[in-house]
Amino acid sequence: MDVLCPVHDQQGKRDVIILNIRSMERIYLETSGETLDPEDWQDFRRQSHRMLDDMLDYTENLRSRPVWQTIPPAVRDAFNQDMPEQSADMTSAHAIFMQDVLPYAIGNAHPGFMGWVHGGGTPVGMMAEMLSAGLNANLGGREQMPVEVERQVLRWMRELFSFPDTASGLFVTGTSMANFISVLVARAAHLGVAVRDEGLSVDHGLVAYASGSAHVSIAQAMDMAGLGTLALRKVCLDENFQMDVKALEAAIVKDRAQGLKPFMITATAGTVDVGAIDPLDEIADIAKRHGLWLHVDGAYGALGMLSPDIAPMLKGMERADSIAFDFHKWGQVPYDAGFVLVKDGELHRRAFATPAAYLQRELRGMAAGSPWPCDFGPDLSRSFRALKAWFTLKVYGAEKLGSMISNTCVLARYLKQRIEAAPMLEMLAPVALNIVCFRYQGSDKLNADIVVALQESGIAAPSTTMVKGRLAIRAAIVNHRTEKRDIDALVDAVLALGEKLWSMNE
Amino acid sequence: MDVLCPVHDQQGKRDVIILNIRSMERIYLETSGETLDPEDWQDFRRQSHRMLDDMLDYTENLRSRPVWQTIPPAVRDAFNQDMPEQSADMTSAHAIFMQDVLPYAIGNAHPGFMGWVHGGGTPVGMMAEMLSAGLNANLGGREQMPVEVERQVLRWMRELFSFPDTASGLFVTGTSMANFISVLVARAAHLGVAVRDEGLSVDHGLVAYASGSAHVSIAQAMDMAGLGTLALRKVCLDENFQMDVKALEAAIVKDRAQGLKPFMITATAGTVDVGAIDPLDEIADIAKRHGLWLHVDGAYGALGMLSPDIAPMLKGMERADSIAFDFHKWGQVPYDAGFVLVKDGELHRRAFATPAAYLQRELRGMAAGSPWPCDFGPDLSRSFRALKAWFTLKVYGAEKLGSMISNTCVLARYLKQRIEAAPMLEMLAPVALNIVCFRYQGSDKLNADIVVALQESGIAAPSTTMVKGRLAIRAAIVNHRTEKRDIDALVDAVLALGEKLWSMNE
Repeated sequence: MDVLCPVHDQQGKRDVIILNIRSMERIYLETSGETLDPEDWQDFRRQSHRMLDDMLDYTENLRSRPVWQTIPPAVRDAFNQDMPEQSADMTSAHAIFMQDVLPYAIGNAHPGFMGWVHGGGTPVGMMAEMLSAGLNANLGGREQMPVEVERQVLRWMRELFSFPDTASGLFVTGTSMANFISVLVARAAHLGVAVRDEGLSVDHGLVAYASGSAHVSIAQAMDMAGLGTLALRKVCLDENFQMDVKALEAAIVKDRAQGLKPFMITATAGTVDVGAIDPLDEIADIAKRHGLWLHVDGAYGALGMLSPDIAPMLKGMERADSIAFDFHKWGQVPYDAGFVLVKDGELHRRAFATPAAYLQRELRGMAAGSPWPCDFGPDLSRSFRALKAWFTLKVYGAEKLGSMISNTCVLARYLKQRIEAAPMLEMLAPVALNIVCFRYQGSDKLNADIVVALQESGIAAPSTTMVKGRLAIRAAIVNHRTEKRDIDALVDAVLALGEKLWSMNE
Repeated sequence: MDVLCPVHDQQGKRDVIILNIRSMERIYLETSGETLDPEDWQDFRRQSHRMLDDMLDYTENLRSRPVWQTIPPAVRDAFNQDMPEQSADMTSAHAIFMQDVLPYAIGNAHPGFMGWVHGGGTPVGMMAEMLSAGLNANLGGREQMPVEVERQVLRWMRELFSFPDTASGLFVTGTSMANFISVLVARAAHLGVAVRDEGLSVDHGLVAYASGSAHVSIAQAMDMAGLGTLALRKVCLDENFQMDVKALEAAIVKDRAQGLKPFMITATAGTVDVGAIDPLDEIADIAKRHGLWLHVDGAYGALGMLSPDIAPMLKGMERADSIAFDFHKWGQVPYDAGFVLVKDGELHRRAFATPAAYLQRELRGMAAGSPWPCDFGPDLSRSFRALKAWFTLKVYGAEKLGSMISNTCVLARYLKQRIEAAPMLEMLAPVALNIVCFRYQGSDKLNADIVVALQESGIAAPSTTMVKGRLAIRAAIVNHRTEKRDIDALVDAVLALGEKLWSMNE
């Protein structure tokens, strides 16, 4: 592809470079030997231990804080400053963090947090991340034990999801990226890896399927891949908010009859709205019958496999061609730690590996150990996410993590019971896992006001969503710290605020 | 797009769910109140402080360790175990880390590391990452101060790169992802945001341009976006390894004459092979003349703006439509912390924002503060990368960071002098910034063997690349800890190993 290259003079630019390097030599005499490491290690150590104690104090005493509080304007304004020219003590930066940032986080570490689907994190995960940041490993590849730690977690995930030894896997930021990677591998499976060079220049006609409750990142993956969101068919839901499998098959047949090329079904294991699990086994049958790639978006639900109670609901997931999920949701690993698992590891590699002179592989030395993680995804610079996931699985063990996951579902069931016992409250969707959508009697606006008032109260923090055209108060019980008393506090506060706001509006 | 939905019976599945929830209630009685927080906080605190001390010891005493060492087979095998069922003490996991992982990292924190372009990290960055992991903020969006910290860093980057207040920016894993985001925004700029829904039409004809030394992630971005790598024209280099601007313009004119649609030029500020900076101002003129999107891949070079010596070489970068760079390279922020800056913030938002019921925005409460970071990129789950970048800029200040960056270039110049003074060594490319490509007299194989032997010696760790068809020993001086004595150790070791391996091969 190289363009013909006329020779021409570059003398002027060379002069500039030489001039600059000369002036740098002067600077070097002034700065030689000065690194960014502390001048006084003992002092730095003292500061660091105080920072650690502050974070442990924060975590130990979370319950004494509000879940969330409004940001005072002056605090926000303090982060609208010019770039600092001069050095400052780390203690002062830490003080700003403690005073202006930490109290005004979104609160997902707090047991009263039930907004969106956020994990709570653990002190074990925090310490693992500290080790990872101190080591500063780049997990793009090369011959190093951090890559082996990632491979160990991959082996565990193959085991958990009953995937073969030839399956590949990769840490990514989150399921949005994992879904995107899966779409690209599925695209390569159907068009051949030549699509990587040739682009979607031919009349490809690819269409994909997901339920109407599928996460927005599925459509976004289609957008980014150049296929377009319109090529994603949104299959309707049944009364349990699961994908209607008859409608799915009808849509595939119809599209094929019209000359289109169905290539991928994304089933959801735990929808973001209500926590529904699509009928995975039936969808796997359809995918097999029609030769489609089956992807499971198990962003938070997939790790339900750790719980003997939930695993049976996920039956059929082992038949997927790819699975995307997050360790930072039900897995409680600190943000971010998404993962993608692909059954055909060699296809996965061929869909991403690129040649590059400076990434040449060797059999010995630091450039050994091929294939590298960068051969399976878009990232060449990758932090050591595997370590916090490895620590979490190693320290807590699968059994305890599974119990904790079950517990969040039991709490959701308890919340449902409390809602059903309260005449002013109404359930809006079945409780499949750990998400409860309900509503106070009254308008959408009243319910939206209740949620904002709840958040501002600091007592509990659900979010909202739309269920069948009506605004729902949505409580996602994900945090391992949430207990029965937090559910009671939520219900009591909704009832009290509902009554108060209703009477104010009248 | 919804498909017609035939009503059918789902009774069977509902039964399964109810059954499972019943068995969970039993489990709840057993596990109620048990979280993943420590049972004994005092004991956990003691363990945590020991972990912190271990990492500070490691960093303080880096010089006493080898840069890198071969992984013993038994160490590797220890990470091929079944998933742990039971809980274990954090101390045992930490011991495994200290014994089996930390000694066998790739070594980029070490002053002798010169392989690839890796930053060294700092203890300040490590402590910031610990805070971030303890807070466990998800930076996808919502009304929280962590998002304001990211916005503060964005404002600083606008200031550094002379971008307007309307420019947008986003932390991502690394420049590979930042390049991809830029390609998608440029794609939307030329085809309209309707391309997101409609996909790439058969005859879009988009073609892009980058130099023959551009990073592989540029081609990969074209691949992922569905445009195909063949639609990326590799423009030839001049004798300084910079993009040949006459060849660039000739290629654009030729493509347009053939009915194609040139849409984007990616200029590189610091090529990965030799550290060359494309002639940014001249390329900006061409982009303007032909109406093309100008993207600058400044993966490691862009932060040269912090150095008064290097900033003049980057003149013209302020004219770019988008800039991609990493804080974890010259910025020494722990992995990973890439960044993308887009001049037209509103276009950037429209190229990524998606509607979703559960992501509904409010004017008050936790769902306020729109637009959110997730409106500018593919990630909804995003760790608090901004904090370690904010701490780094706040604690060190722009001036000291700039000096440190200059210093790496001066060391490269010093390495060049030493090479030129050694008859057995030969320079293979000009030294524009901080990367030096050279060679011991002899075959490609001899040079490859020297590099592997060097790496295995633990003294210094350069990598290799191909320069004009010949294998180069490539030393990238990125680490703030690298000093003159490390350069001397590298040259002395190359000379000694070259002589030894040459005589062995004869």
